[in-house]
Amino acid sequence: MRKKIPDSKVIEQTLGERKLVLASNRGPIQFERGKDGKREWRRGAGGLITALDSILKATKAYWIASAMTEEDSQVAKNQKLLGLPEDDPFYWIYLLDIPPDKYDQYYNEISNDLLWFLNHHLFDVANEPTFGSQFRKAWDNGYVAVNKQFAQTIAALTKGDDDPVIMIQDYHLYLVGGFLRQLKRDAVLFHFVHVPWCSPDYFRILPTDVRQAILESLLTLDIVGFHSRRYVRNFILCCQDLLGCRIDLRHGKVYYRDRVVLVKAYPISIGVEETRKMLEIPEVSEGIEKLSEITDKYKLILRVDRAELSKNLIRGFEAFAMLLDTHPELLGTLKFLAYAYPSREYLKKYSDYRRAIEEKVAEINSKYGNSQWQPIDLQIDDNYYRSIAALSRFDVLLTNPVFDGMNLVAKEASVLNSRDGVIVLSENAGAYEELRDGVLGINPFDLEDTAKKLYQALTMTPLERGLRATRLKEIVKRNDVLKWLRHQLRDIEKVSKT
Amino acid sequence: MRKKIPDSKVIEQTLGERKLVLASNRGPIQFERGKDGKREWRRGAGGLITALDSILKATKAYWIASAMTEEDSQVAKNQKLLGLPEDDPFYWIYLLDIPPDKYDQYYNEISNDLLWFLNHHLFDVANEPTFGSQFRKAWDNGYVAVNKQFAQTIAALTKGDDDPVIMIQDYHLYLVGGFLRQLKRDAVLFHFVHVPWCSPDYFRILPTDVRQAILESLLTLDIVGFHSRRYVRNFILCCQDLLGCRIDLRHGKVYYRDRVVLVKAYPISIGVEETRKMLEIPEVSEGIEKLSEITDKYKLILRVDRAELSKNLIRGFEAFAMLLDTHPELLGTLKFLAYAYPSREYLKKYSDYRRAIEEKVAEINSKYGNSQWQPIDLQIDDNYYRSIAALSRFDVLLTNPVFDGMNLVAKEASVLNSRDGVIVLSENAGAYEELRDGVLGINPFDLEDTAKKLYQALTMTPLERGLRATRLKEIVKRNDVLKWLRHQLRDIEKVSKT
Repeated sequence: MRKKIPDSKVIEQTLGERKLVLASNRGPIQFERGKDGKREWRRGAGGLITALDSILKATKAYWIASAMTEEDSQVAKNQKLLGLPEDDPFYWIYLLDIPPDKYDQYYNEISNDLLWFLNHHLFDVANEPTFGSQFRKAWDNGYVAVNKQFAQTIAALTKGDDDPVIMIQDYHLYLVGGFLRQLKRDAVLFHFVHVPWCSPDYFRILPTDVRQAILESLLTLDIVGFHSRRYVRNFILCCQDLLGCRIDLRHGKVYYRDRVVLVKAYPISIGVEETRKMLEIPEVSEGIEKLSEITDKYKLILRVDRAELSKNLIRGFEAFAMLLDTHPELLGTLKFLAYAYPSREYLKKYSDYRRAIEEKVAEINSKYGNSQWQPIDLQIDDNYYRSIAALSRFDVLLTNPVFDGMNLVAKEASVLNSRDGVIVLSENAGAYEELRDGVLGINPFDLEDTAKKLYQALTMTPLERGLRATRLKEIVKRNDVLKWLRHQLRDIEKVSKT
Repeated sequence: MRKKIPDSKVIEQTLGERKLVLASNRGPIQFERGKDGKREWRRGAGGLITALDSILKATKAYWIASAMTEEDSQVAKNQKLLGLPEDDPFYWIYLLDIPPDKYDQYYNEISNDLLWFLNHHLFDVANEPTFGSQFRKAWDNGYVAVNKQFAQTIAALTKGDDDPVIMIQDYHLYLVGGFLRQLKRDAVLFHFVHVPWCSPDYFRILPTDVRQAILESLLTLDIVGFHSRRYVRNFILCCQDLLGCRIDLRHGKVYYRDRVVLVKAYPISIGVEETRKMLEIPEVSEGIEKLSEITDKYKLILRVDRAELSKNLIRGFEAFAMLLDTHPELLGTLKFLAYAYPSREYLKKYSDYRRAIEEKVAEINSKYGNSQWQPIDLQIDDNYYRSIAALSRFDVLLTNPVFDGMNLVAKEASVLNSRDGVIVLSENAGAYEELRDGVLGINPFDLEDTAKKLYQALTMTPLERGLRATRLKEIVKRNDVLKWLRHQLRDIEKVSKT
């Protein structure tokens, strides 16, 4: 086996003297005022932060993000770079102070209620979206303004650096690249999109000038990255249809004005070691201990997601009910644990969805359960350690999103699980492209398919479970988050030379 | 100008001795029992029937369709070909008698509630569709069974004909080709799809075996035709993604097993002369006369569509309200006539939509109208002649579907209108590809865009109105329905020779 080059080395080799800048809506840490009145910070959750944070060590990179908490805003008002960790910093944070009403327009109205829905095909198009004057205000005063603020900040921070490498993250910041290109002609600009990219037919839903602005901004960059080849193709076809670009699907190139833009899939992953180490956290061990009350008696079907429209919880429960219908011998022998993080409940569609989830679970529990045994245990709250514990102990993991950018839970589960648990995975999760040989793939709209695969997973021979689990661990190990970054850096190096 | 070859000649040249067979769910005529107890028939409405009926003259073709009325079923039970017209027939009808419950599964549950929604992107995917046992029954006992019945009937009727040309129409009959190929190895099989075809991401919503069955059936044919190049590309990409086919996007070819299938756009059109002649119908003249009460006093904005989710009536009215808001000088000077044919009201989504349309109109009329003047006149009923009359007299036609296969109304309007009326047309209507140089294109989700284009249309100089109207008439005349058929026949001839 080839000796692995340490993370920091890879980055140093690529960057040389050049400055690395990261931009994302949410930063890696959040500040709070402690009980003693002192400022404290804690690491944020979420796959992206875990991934990026773990590889920024020793880069001396700048990470630009929005202030999220009140204390963040206080920090932001100082307009200073903050080294992390404070005593021996290896990268620096810069927080942007954005007024709440502007942030609401940028983050809620445009990023989450529009672009997230668009990217995940979540609109009921006969009735939504409708672009009127409220949208226009949110776009101009919110999204465009905040994106410009990000770009101006990055330009100011890299003043004097000739050709910094700037890595812009996700759907909140589609316009940063375009503004930045005007200010930093020679920078290497890379945008990574962490959500799916939809087909041109669906992308056309956006107002003409808005969709053009987004595509034109992304096409002033050097590289645009996605999780999967499906999204790459969709993006390239959008450029052809909506800007009339010459394209090269085979080589992932879009020709726009005087530029050639590389469009490519870099499937994000997890830090395998960092993930495994989470099992050593006391709260996780306690969680595993507590779970044994269930796992000693029952087979454990698990799901862990946000209570989010795209995650498809209701069809998951309906498929489980179909499983109980078709295989009554399973009654009383298994337990479906559903851990759902509350999500965007200020939106009616989401609070309605949460209510529908709860009603569906109550209906199934009352139909199939009894005083001794309830088939589903639904917990809608935020308990990260409990989720990690459960991921290490499931017999079957159900991850059935209607559409999903990557779905890192499937990769975390592959690494964490110690019982040769079987993963039943939607073919519309980005992770499916990589994991297909180890998981049981399903069409997430198809209850029969889902129920059958759950049954297949529950009744699989130990030999096959073991083979699949091993295969999954190998795939994820081979394609860990460092490889994700390495591939990006390698391509950044290539485009820098040309 | 080149002398036009008569329709019948074109068809004869292509077909020679070969039998032409048409298959569609709805046939060109329906039988009823008259008041005197005698059997009567009347021609059906709808663009497809008008188009095909007008070009079948002198072909001696067979047209296979479902029995729709009770009297149709009586006719169907005789299992006989019926010549039309009865005294000197130039083509023959054969009606299939399908039991009502089976027809309901095939037509309502699968064709309209599933495939129509799919093709037009109408699902609220977080909540629908869900494929369970009811779907499976409707698919197997309804859609598959009826498609097989069509295929077997066609095979029986063409027994002895070596290489008939069989033209299968639309989304109700996707599986006919596959069944028929097993029975008629040497037939030339052509399927024409009259609705949009969606992207692979969206087509994947269908259960795995169902989407495969549809694609595999269509790929046993010689030619698959669509209205626009967008749909052609979507279909070809579906074949690549879901069947792993080798494809050739540039030449519209899909390689599947031992076949090469031609996939091509043939934009359907209208018979220009037949359409113009409708103005001579007394009921139409009366309608025009009656309309002058409005057109003498007001500018006339018109819409004519089914009250169908894809037609986007509510956003159309909202855009009109925005127009009145931004241009109060228009109050009292114009009238928005909305003629909507009732559609699928047995479905809750449609009856809800109708109610929402009525509420929106009431709201706008109460806000902007007064005792002398109401801005919108909404008529949800079925009055074909009144629509034709209005199409000849509008100042502005609003046709803003969210997604629409072709939209023949835009073409009919181009031919019928005698006042240089301006057409405001959704870029997601199939017709937009051809008519874009004559219409004002809109993003149908964008109220501001729609309101602006309505204003532009209302205030356009007579010179520009005239130029646009002339251009539209020329485009439609050049690409009439005969050309649609001629292109198909030319390609049928080509594939027959190879």
